[in-house]
Amino acid sequence: MRILDLIYRKRNGEELSEEEIAHLVTGYNSGEVPDYQMAAFLMAVYFTNMSDKEVGAMTSAMLTSGEGIDLRDVGGVKVDKHSTGGVGDKTSLIAAPLAAAAGVTIPMISGRALGHTGGTLDKLESIPGFRTDLSLDEFRHQLTHVGFAVIGQSDQVTPADGKIYALRDATATIESTALIAASIMSKKLAASLDGLVLDVKVGSGAFIKKLIEARRLAQMMVAIARRANLRAQALITDMNQPLGYAVGNALEIMEVSQTLQNAGPTDLTRISLELAARMIYLGKAAKNLEDARKIAEEKLLDGAGYRKFKEVIQAQGGNPQVLDRFDLLPNATGVLEITTPRGGYVSAIDAELVGQAATLIGAGRDSKESEIDPAVGLILEVKVGQKVDAGGVLCRLYYTKEDRVEDASQSIEDAFRISAQAPEPRELILEVVS
Amino acid sequence: MRILDLIYRKRNGEELSEEEIAHLVTGYNSGEVPDYQMAAFLMAVYFTNMSDKEVGAMTSAMLTSGEGIDLRDVGGVKVDKHSTGGVGDKTSLIAAPLAAAAGVTIPMISGRALGHTGGTLDKLESIPGFRTDLSLDEFRHQLTHVGFAVIGQSDQVTPADGKIYALRDATATIESTALIAASIMSKKLAASLDGLVLDVKVGSGAFIKKLIEARRLAQMMVAIARRANLRAQALITDMNQPLGYAVGNALEIMEVSQTLQNAGPTDLTRISLELAARMIYLGKAAKNLEDARKIAEEKLLDGAGYRKFKEVIQAQGGNPQVLDRFDLLPNATGVLEITTPRGGYVSAIDAELVGQAATLIGAGRDSKESEIDPAVGLILEVKVGQKVDAGGVLCRLYYTKEDRVEDASQSIEDAFRISAQAPEPRELILEVVS
Repeated sequence: MRILDLIYRKRNGEELSEEEIAHLVTGYNSGEVPDYQMAAFLMAVYFTNMSDKEVGAMTSAMLTSGEGIDLRDVGGVKVDKHSTGGVGDKTSLIAAPLAAAAGVTIPMISGRALGHTGGTLDKLESIPGFRTDLSLDEFRHQLTHVGFAVIGQSDQVTPADGKIYALRDATATIESTALIAASIMSKKLAASLDGLVLDVKVGSGAFIKKLIEARRLAQMMVAIARRANLRAQALITDMNQPLGYAVGNALEIMEVSQTLQNAGPTDLTRISLELAARMIYLGKAAKNLEDARKIAEEKLLDGAGYRKFKEVIQAQGGNPQVLDRFDLLPNATGVLEITTPRGGYVSAIDAELVGQAATLIGAGRDSKESEIDPAVGLILEVKVGQKVDAGGVLCRLYYTKEDRVEDASQSIEDAFRISAQAPEPRELILEVVS
Repeated sequence: MRILDLIYRKRNGEELSEEEIAHLVTGYNSGEVPDYQMAAFLMAVYFTNMSDKEVGAMTSAMLTSGEGIDLRDVGGVKVDKHSTGGVGDKTSLIAAPLAAAAGVTIPMISGRALGHTGGTLDKLESIPGFRTDLSLDEFRHQLTHVGFAVIGQSDQVTPADGKIYALRDATATIESTALIAASIMSKKLAASLDGLVLDVKVGSGAFIKKLIEARRLAQMMVAIARRANLRAQALITDMNQPLGYAVGNALEIMEVSQTLQNAGPTDLTRISLELAARMIYLGKAAKNLEDARKIAEEKLLDGAGYRKFKEVIQAQGGNPQVLDRFDLLPNATGVLEITTPRGGYVSAIDAELVGQAATLIGAGRDSKESEIDPAVGLILEVKVGQKVDAGGVLCRLYYTKEDRVEDASQSIEDAFRISAQAPEPRELILEVVS
C-alpha cells in the first residue's frame, strides 16, 4: 500500500478502504508518513470529502492511536460538551460549571485555538498558574472531588488526532466536515463518556458556513456516537456574529466570570444555559429536559456555577481570585478604539473578520509553532440590532505589539455593517440533532 | 503576508498576486515555508487551477531563484526539446542526437522519473559511468565540441523548481496544467535558448488525459516562451499506449540504440523524427520544415545520430559500447512472461497501468527519497492493433526483487484489452501549437 497511491485516489474522489485509512493515520502517527504527504491528503479530503465509512475509519484509527483515558474508577454519570469552534465562544467554561454544580461529572478534553477561532485550553491558560497538563491520576482525582476537570489531549489520548489537528491548522484544511467529525469524535470516544453535548456552530465565524453542512456534521457525529453506545445530542447554533462581546483569551475569562454571575451578554447566557441543560439531562441529574433547564438556571442564579468554576481553577493550580480581580489576569498595554463614521443600526458583524483581527494581534495561531498572547483581543461595544451614533465606538482593540494593529483594525472596520433599518432578529439555536 | 492565508485563498479559488506567488516560491526555496504548507498549496492549485498571470509569476519566481545557465559563449543556434512525460517516452534520446548531428546545438536540461512516467536523467544514468552532474564549464565545453549535452537541474539553475518538482512527485500533485507549465518553462528559460520544441503528451499514460487540457498546456507554454522571445513549437502527441516496446531505464536505452540504428518501433521512430525535424528547423539548420524532415531522416539512415549519441555517452563518462553490447548495461535477474487467456486484437494498452507496474518493481519513484533500479522494467511483445493468439505473450517483466512482481503483473494484465475486432488506427501526432 503506497501512501502516494492513497493520496492520488483520494484526490480523484475515490473511497478508501478502512484498512487504507488506518494505514495512513497510523503511519503518520509513527512518523513514517511525512507531514507533506499528510498535508496533501488533507487538502484532497477538503475538496473531495469522505464517506461515512471513511470518517468512521479515521475516527477509529485516531482513537486506537492512543491508550484512551480510563475513567472507570470515577463515579457519576460522565458527560462532556464540545463546540466545533467559533469566535468569542466561551460557552464550555459557563455550561460545564453549571452542569457540574448540578452533580454531573465532566471530564473535559479540550482543544486549542484553530484558525480564526479560539480554544478552551488557551483561554484557561491565560489564568496565571492554570495547568491543563494534569496527569491522568490528577484528572481522575479532580473529577472525583470537584466533578469537573479540563485537560488537553496528551500522547496517551489520541496522539494521531493531535498531530493531524496541528497540521490542518497550518495548511488551511480545517474547514472539512469529515475531518472535523473524525477529530472531535476520536477525542470524545477516548474518554469513555456516558453522554456528549455537541454545539455545531454555523455562520461566517464558524468553520461551517452553511446550515446544510452543519446538519451533515451534526448527524455524522451523532451517528458515530450511537455506534459507540454514547448518548449524544447536537445543537446547531448561529455564529454569524461573535458570541458575547469579548474575543481573546484573558478577555474571555473575564466575560465568563461576568456571565457566571448572571451579568453576561444575553446571547452567551442563553446558549450556555441550553447547553448546560442538555448536559444535566444526559447526565441524569434531571428527569426531563424541562427540569434540566430549571436546574441550570438555578445554578446560575444562586452562584453555584460561579463557585464551581473557582473550585476548578484552584484545583488546577490557578488563582481563583482572577474571576473577581481582572487585574490579576494578563493585561494588554495598548488600546485602540474603532469608531463608525456613520450612525444607524448594526446589521451584521462578520465574525470571521473579527476572529482574523484577533488572530492578527496574537490572540490566535498563524502556524502550529506560533505562540498566543493571552492578554490581547478585542471587546465589541455593540452587537447586531443595536443602534450606534456617527462617531460611536464599535469595538476596542487590546494589543501589546503595534505591528499588526492597523491590519486588525481594518479587518474590524470591514466586519461591521451599519444600516438605516434595524435588521430582523435571528434565531440563536437553529436545530437540535439527537 | 501569511502563507496560511495564501493557501486559504488559493483553496477558495482566488487569484493570488504576482508578489504573493513570488513570496511563496522564494520562501519555500529558502526553507522558510515548510514542505507541508507547500504541499497543501500545490494540492489546492490542483483543484482550483491558476490564471495565466499566476503561472507567469510562478515561472518567473522559479527562474529567478537561481543564476540560470550562461551559454552566451557557446556558439550555434541553441535548441532544446522537452516532453511533458509519458510511459516509454525516450524520444529525447533519439531526436536530440539526430538534430545535433544536423548541426543544432542542444543544451538539454532534463528531469527525473515522475509518478508513473520515466525521466531522461534516470535513463541515461543506467549507463555505467554516465554523469549527469556536469559542471557548467564541462557543459559548455561539451556543447562546443559535441553539440549536445545533458544535465539535470542544479542549485544554480532553478532550485525552487527542483524542490517543488520533488514535492509534487510525492504528493500526487503532478497532474496540474499550471504547475507543469511553470516547471517546464522556468527550466527552459534559464538556459537562454533560441528555440524550444515541446512534446505535450495526452492520454491514459500522460499526466494530461484530455486533449482540451493538452492544448491549454501547450498554449500556456508557447505563450510564456513568446513573452521571453524564445521561438517555441509544441506537438500534442498520443500517449494512450506506451511509446515503443520498452519501459524501464536500461531497457529504454537499448531501444534507443535500436531506433537510432533504424531498427526501432514504428511509433517511436515516427515521433522522434518529427521532433528532430522541428529542432532542426528552429535550429536554423534547414530552410523550411520539409527540408528539416529530410535532414532528420538522413541522419537516422546514415547512422550520424547513432554516432552522435555514442559521442555524448563518451563525453559524459559512460561507456559508448553499451549501445552495441547490452550485457554491459544493468540487467534484471528475473523475468516473468505475462500471457493472454484469449486471442484477438490488442485494442488498448492502458499506459498508466503499465507505467505503474514498472514503478512498482522499481523503475520509477514512490516518494522523493526512493531509489530507482536501473535494470528493471518491462518489454511489451505486442502493441495496439496487433493480433495475439490465446496463450500468447503480451509482455515480459524484468525484475530484481520478487515482492511486488505479482502486483505489477496484475497491473499489466489489467492494462491490456483484447477484442475480436481490429481497432481503428489512431493518430500519433494530434496537433501542433506554434
